[in-house]
Amino acid sequence: MTQETKRHSGGCPVAHGLDVFGDRWTLLVLRDLMLHDKQTYGAFLEGQEGIATNILAQRLKHLEQEGVLQKRRDPENRRRYLYSLTDRGMDLIPIVLEIIRWSGSYFEMTPRRRKLVDRIEADRDAVAVEIRDRMLRLREDAPATG
Amino acid sequence: MTQETKRHSGGCPVAHGLDVFGDRWTLLVLRDLMLHDKQTYGAFLEGQEGIATNILAQRLKHLEQEGVLQKRRDPENRRRYLYSLTDRGMDLIPIVLEIIRWSGSYFEMTPRRRKLVDRIEADRDAVAVEIRDRMLRLREDAPATG
Repeated sequence: MTQETKRHSGGCPVAHGLDVFGDRWTLLVLRDLMLHDKQTYGAFLEGQEGIATNILAQRLKHLEQEGVLQKRRDPENRRRYLYSLTDRGMDLIPIVLEIIRWSGSYFEMTPRRRKLVDRIEADRDAVAVEIRDRMLRLREDAPATG
Repeated sequence: MTQETKRHSGGCPVAHGLDVFGDRWTLLVLRDLMLHDKQTYGAFLEGQEGIATNILAQRLKHLEQEGVLQKRRDPENRRRYLYSLTDRGMDLIPIVLEIIRWSGSYFEMTPRRRKLVDRIEADRDAVAVEIRDRMLRLREDAPATG
């Protein structure tokens, strides 16, 4: 039984999950990892939503503690870390894809984003597998972006 | 073009969606509607997570403004409102089901909740249709709970 399991036992599974990732900034960091291949603190900080440094640092730490993210030193720059999704983190891909699908039904978006929504509509599981494969590669040996 | 669309145009669909529902308390209210057939302010307030009255009132208002919830006067008690999901709100069912599925993989839960997770694993779309049908009935004529 993990620490999280003990902490939450008896409660509702939705509430448990939301304790781990149910926060706007947390989900935006996960989006940056899954869709934009961002791996570094600096790259997350550059997101168009303008996350504050302290919030970003807190969210990264939280996700690491919850076993959603892992980090390793960048072999090309030993002073920085590369973040990647753990297996538990990769299991969040379907949630992010459903959020994109919903948003695609109700908001205008660029053609590039619309194409992603269309692909999710057509075959969500295939898109999930594709993202998972890319995440696995990033976890091992890919160079950092940003 | 809706007000939301204008406000967010050009941005990321994930961020757009999260502006509408990407908040722990908001998602817990949606869970109460979808899974526990709660329809009233009083019923939401009784949730085991102990939502504060001001937060609940703010979240309900926000979801109504965003077109996710609608309310009507309770025919059996004209002083209270019955909340229900709009079509836009019902389209959030797959997101909540994916949150439950993820949590089911990583947390202990009661047998009743485990059964729901198993059903989602076996046929998520069937569970979504079932919830949608129940939500449609609540929208029309069902008595209030709590």
